[in-house]
Amino acid sequence: MTGPRYTKLIESLPSSVPFVAPEQMERQRGAPFLARLGANENIFGPSPKALEAIRQAADNIWKYGEPDSHALRHALAAHHNVGPENILVGEGIDGLLGYLVRLLISPGDPVVTSDGAYPTFNYHVSGYGGQLHKVPYKDDHEDIQALINKSKSAKAKLIYFANPDNPMGTFYPGADITAALSDLPENCLFLLDEAYIEFAPEGTSPEISTDDPRVIRMRTFSKAYGMAGARVGYAIGTADLIRSFDKIRNHFGMCLLSQAGAMAALEDQEWINQTIEKVSQSRTAITDIAAQNGLTALPSAANFVTVDCGVDGDFARKVLSGLIEQGVFVRMPFVAPQDRCIRISCGREADLEHLAKALPIALENAK
Amino acid sequence: MTGPRYTKLIESLPSSVPFVAPEQMERQRGAPFLARLGANENIFGPSPKALEAIRQAADNIWKYGEPDSHALRHALAAHHNVGPENILVGEGIDGLLGYLVRLLISPGDPVVTSDGAYPTFNYHVSGYGGQLHKVPYKDDHEDIQALINKSKSAKAKLIYFANPDNPMGTFYPGADITAALSDLPENCLFLLDEAYIEFAPEGTSPEISTDDPRVIRMRTFSKAYGMAGARVGYAIGTADLIRSFDKIRNHFGMCLLSQAGAMAALEDQEWINQTIEKVSQSRTAITDIAAQNGLTALPSAANFVTVDCGVDGDFARKVLSGLIEQGVFVRMPFVAPQDRCIRISCGREADLEHLAKALPIALENAK
Repeated sequence: MTGPRYTKLIESLPSSVPFVAPEQMERQRGAPFLARLGANENIFGPSPKALEAIRQAADNIWKYGEPDSHALRHALAAHHNVGPENILVGEGIDGLLGYLVRLLISPGDPVVTSDGAYPTFNYHVSGYGGQLHKVPYKDDHEDIQALINKSKSAKAKLIYFANPDNPMGTFYPGADITAALSDLPENCLFLLDEAYIEFAPEGTSPEISTDDPRVIRMRTFSKAYGMAGARVGYAIGTADLIRSFDKIRNHFGMCLLSQAGAMAALEDQEWINQTIEKVSQSRTAITDIAAQNGLTALPSAANFVTVDCGVDGDFARKVLSGLIEQGVFVRMPFVAPQDRCIRISCGREADLEHLAKALPIALENAK
Repeated sequence: MTGPRYTKLIESLPSSVPFVAPEQMERQRGAPFLARLGANENIFGPSPKALEAIRQAADNIWKYGEPDSHALRHALAAHHNVGPENILVGEGIDGLLGYLVRLLISPGDPVVTSDGAYPTFNYHVSGYGGQLHKVPYKDDHEDIQALINKSKSAKAKLIYFANPDNPMGTFYPGADITAALSDLPENCLFLLDEAYIEFAPEGTSPEISTDDPRVIRMRTFSKAYGMAGARVGYAIGTADLIRSFDKIRNHFGMCLLSQAGAMAALEDQEWINQTIEKVSQSRTAITDIAAQNGLTALPSAANFVTVDCGVDGDFARKVLSGLIEQGVFVRMPFVAPQDRCIRISCGREADLEHLAKALPIALENAK
C-alpha cells in the first residue's frame, strides 16, 4: 500500500516547526519554568470583564460562533472609526497572515521582509511557494526605505513591516511610515503588523485611509489585551481586500468564547491603560536589571525588552541557555547581528526577580 | 492608486459564502429564532465538567495554547488506542479539511465526492483549484462503490466520504467501508469524515490500522461533545501524514480554552452516553412529528433527521421558508433529488414543540 500524493510544493517544504513551545521545553527540562518571559505574552492578563464574558459565554458553547464575528467586527469598526466592511476578524494575526499570503502569493512570487523579522510570516510565504527577499536591519530598526527599494527591484507583491518591530522593540513614528509609503511601487501591498502598537507612544500608528488599497493593517488581542490563548486577530483594509478573504478563509474558524471575550476586552479601555502603565514599569525594571549586569537594553515600544549581551550570537545563545536552565524562559533574535541580543517579555515583579537572580549566573557561565 | 495583485486562482474564485449564519438570518427577519435546529449543533450541550474546565482555564488565557495540543492529543490517542503521533488536533474539521486539501491538491488535481455532500469540503477543493468529480447519491446514501469507481477513472488524489452522511443521516456498517477500501486505487487518499459517528450504531466506524496510508479519519467535538463554538476537530492517520500537516498548519491556531474544554469533555464519556440517548429520543420525536404531518423521516444515525417532504426541491424550499418565517431554523440538502427533504437537528422538547406547531402551517402554505 502506498501513501497519499502530496503536491510538489508540499514535498519541497521543510518539516521543521517555527517555534518550540515553552511547554515542550518544560517537558524536556523536567520542570516548569519559574518565569515565562519568552513569548511576548501579556502576563498582566485581560480585563476581568473579558474573563467574566468568557465564563458567561461558555453556556453557549454548543453553538457555532458567528462566521463573520458580526458583533466584534462592528465594535472594532466603531473603536477605529472605520466601517465594519473594513474589518476582518481571524484566528490571530498568524491565521490572517496565512490567508493574506494565500490571496496574493503563487509559487515564485516575490515578497519582501526584513532579515530576522517575524518567522511565521516567512513560514506562510514559503508555504505558498513565495520567494522571500530579505533586507538587513539598520541600527536595530527595520529599514523601511531599503524595504521599499527592494520591493521595487524585486517587483514584490507584498512587503511585511512590523511597527513596533519584533524582535527588536524599535519603532518608527507613524508620519515616517506615511512618508515612506509615497514611494511604494504600484500594486505592492504594504502589510503593517501592529501587534504591539498599544504599547507604543502616541503617533506611532500612521493615519491611513481605509480607501487606500496599498495597505493592510493587522492587530491582535494577544498582546495589550492579554488574550493570546483566545486567538483573536483582526485586519483593517479596503472593503475589497477584506471581502476577498471570504473566498478562502475558514468561515467557522473563530471560537465563540474568544469572540465574547474580545468584545468585553475592547470595551474596557481603562484596563488597557493600566496594562500599558504596568508594561512601561516592567520595561524600566528590565532595563535596570540589564544595566546592573553591564548590559544595554534597547529602547522598546513593545511589551518586551531586547537586551544587547554585548558580544555576538554565540555568546547570547549561551546566556539564553543559562537563563532557560535556571527556569527563566526567554527568546532571542535568530539572525546576526540582532542575535547578539536576548528578548525578555515584560513580567510582574516576581517574574523579574527570577530574571535578576538568573542573569548574572548565566552571564558568568557564558564567558 | 491601484490595489493588490491577487493570484489567478483567487481571481477565479466566487465571492459567495458557503453558509449564511443563523444570526444573520435573525437580523434579516428582525427577531431571534424560537428553535435553532438548522446547524446540527448539539443543543444538549457539553459535559458540565467541560464548562468547568473552560472557566478554570480562563485564568490562563494570557498564555498561548500549546501548538501541538500536547495534552489533548495524548488523551485522544489513549481514547482511540493509537499513538499520539497518529493524532492531529485542529480548528474544527473545517480547518483540517482545508489543511488536507492544501497538502494534496494543486490546480487541476482530481477529487471525488458525492453530489450534495458537505459543501465546505468542496469550498476548500475549489479554493485550491482542485477539480471536483461528483457522484450521485444512491437511495439517499453516498454510493461508496461508485465513488471508488469514479476515483479510478478520474485518477483522483482524494475521496471524501462521510459516515454517517450529512445531510441525509444515512450510514454504512464499518465492514462495508473496509470491504470497499480493498478496491481503492493506488495513491488515492480516502477521507472518512466521522463527525457524527458517536450517534451511530456500534460497528459503524470501520476498523482501520493507523499504519494504513490510504485513509485519514476526522472527528470533532462539535457534535456529540456539544462544543461547536470551541472549534476542536481532530484527524487520525499515519504518522507520516499527520506530521505533514506541520508543514503548513497555523501552529498557534488553537484556543487554549477549547483545548481545556475538550480534554474534560473527552473524559466524561458518561455524559456522551446520556447525550446519545437524548438525541435518540429526539430523533424519534422528530420522526413522529413528520408522520403526524404525513411525511416520511429517513432513518438517521446522526443528531439530525432528514424529512422527505414528498414532492421536490421547490416544494421543500417553500416548507423550509415557512418554518424559518415562523422562527424555526432548519436547513435542507442543496442538490436534487435529496433536496425534496428538509434537515432538522435534534432538540429539546421545547424546541420540537415549536417545530410541531410550525410544520403543518408551513406545509399548508407550501401547497
